[in-house]
Amino acid sequence: VITFTGSPLDRGASRRDDASWIEQQRADPHACFVAVHEGRLRVRDGRLDVAAESQGEAIFLGVHQQTPWFAVETGGGDAYEELRGLALILPPEEASIAAAAKSLFEWHSRHRYCSQCGQPSDVAASGWKRVCPACRAEHFPRVDPVVIMLPLFGDRCLLARQAAWPARRMAPLAGFLEPGESIEEACARETNEEAGLVATRVTYHASQPWPFPSTLMIGLFVEVASDAAVPDGVELEEVRWLTRDEASAVLAGSHPEVLAPNRYAIAHELLTAWVERRNR
Amino acid sequence: VITFTGSPLDRGASRRDDASWIEQQRADPHACFVAVHEGRLRVRDGRLDVAAESQGEAIFLGVHQQTPWFAVETGGGDAYEELRGLALILPPEEASIAAAAKSLFEWHSRHRYCSQCGQPSDVAASGWKRVCPACRAEHFPRVDPVVIMLPLFGDRCLLARQAAWPARRMAPLAGFLEPGESIEEACARETNEEAGLVATRVTYHASQPWPFPSTLMIGLFVEVASDAAVPDGVELEEVRWLTRDEASAVLAGSHPEVLAPNRYAIAHELLTAWVERRNR
Repeated sequence: VITFTGSPLDRGASRRDDASWIEQQRADPHACFVAVHEGRLRVRDGRLDVAAESQGEAIFLGVHQQTPWFAVETGGGDAYEELRGLALILPPEEASIAAAAKSLFEWHSRHRYCSQCGQPSDVAASGWKRVCPACRAEHFPRVDPVVIMLPLFGDRCLLARQAAWPARRMAPLAGFLEPGESIEEACARETNEEAGLVATRVTYHASQPWPFPSTLMIGLFVEVASDAAVPDGVELEEVRWLTRDEASAVLAGSHPEVLAPNRYAIAHELLTAWVERRNR
Repeated sequence: VITFTGSPLDRGASRRDDASWIEQQRADPHACFVAVHEGRLRVRDGRLDVAAESQGEAIFLGVHQQTPWFAVETGGGDAYEELRGLALILPPEEASIAAAAKSLFEWHSRHRYCSQCGQPSDVAASGWKRVCPACRAEHFPRVDPVVIMLPLFGDRCLLARQAAWPARRMAPLAGFLEPGESIEEACARETNEEAGLVATRVTYHASQPWPFPSTLMIGLFVEVASDAAVPDGVELEEVRWLTRDEASAVLAGSHPEVLAPNRYAIAHELLTAWVERRNR
């Protein structure tokens, strides 16, 4: 199971514009309210604290077994925690719901004005759209695609280290996909830019919503033409080829020089799948 | 070959902030300038007309065999044509370059103001970023991921028709991926919302940059639990199961009731790959 996936909610996208239906759901005594403050989530005993909360702007998240779910931006307090720290503590389906809530509120907080004309815009579609009253432009929540790829050569894989990371932490390569390129082209470009390697084959593995603040991680394996990897010295300060046995030790926490990627990141799943030969 | 992929340019992303290097490239007498006006491209004899053009705001697109390429927004004129009409006329590598140029200018045209504070923002990184002088927010070109999937049940595939399309035109299902969902979850949701089908298995096939204005088309096959498809009546007005022979006739243009997707869309490639059994 990939962290931040597995939400049981039916998003009910076709009901978002039905204001009276949404109001009715919000008034449901069983409605759940995911409380968010500046990107942090209100929790209680390792679960989302979704006790009724009727004040504030609400985003309709969906319905599960007749229970409507909303996200609300609140005043904050001691019970609010960072989603990174909660990712492996919350039940997986709550982590996924929290991810959607966090991404949406962070998008609203950075998009209160119309990018086309500069006027304040209004929330619409129960939080899934903003509309400019001045120029009528419609703006939708942003999701930025990122390619994340494990380079493979022969029977080894490549991990890389950014200077800003904790000591010994290493992970696959990654970068934002740009306008005018396919997933495969973005993968080849980033593999070359960051590590000087030439991609010969790109294979899709899995994907993950990443709510920091709102990216789509597209997990790939990339076979490369040689093992002459050179870190770019800008984003990356070190690259290192690992055998399956070495990678296995990294995942087990027993490698003396390399710390595995965070367990809740798709980086960890890519490495695990390769070690278990699930990439073929 | 998938249309809008295959650009030969090295994007040189690490040089975008080097203003003096960029100026030097722009002054290169061999520099190529892709002229864009309101999303249309200047062409001549079925090729991009990239004659020297030094006025106006320029975006650095990259370098190919020592030749720098830029996109410039110009005053327009008779020689400008829609990219949809040019997609299969231009050499594939020029269609890909044009796609990047068009997506970037359309992003700039809709993002002249800072979405965080409403002030006019400035172009930076030779066209790959905007920076707000008031609040210092940085904004990057937007790419919206879209899932596009061909439902499969037994030995048949499903095509669908939107009411707004030309008569008889049919295509796979498609929809925008939302914050907080994986590619596989977005595919399952849209398949259910649009056609009432339950996804049992999602398989990635290929991707395509789609410059209308700037989406990433993620091409998938989705196996479904039954053939009880029902068009939602909102986005779709008709759905139809086709055998491989029928789909083959659609692609050949000989099916009396169904017109194939546009040849330059990944929708066409998905159907072709399935007919040729390249999806297994």
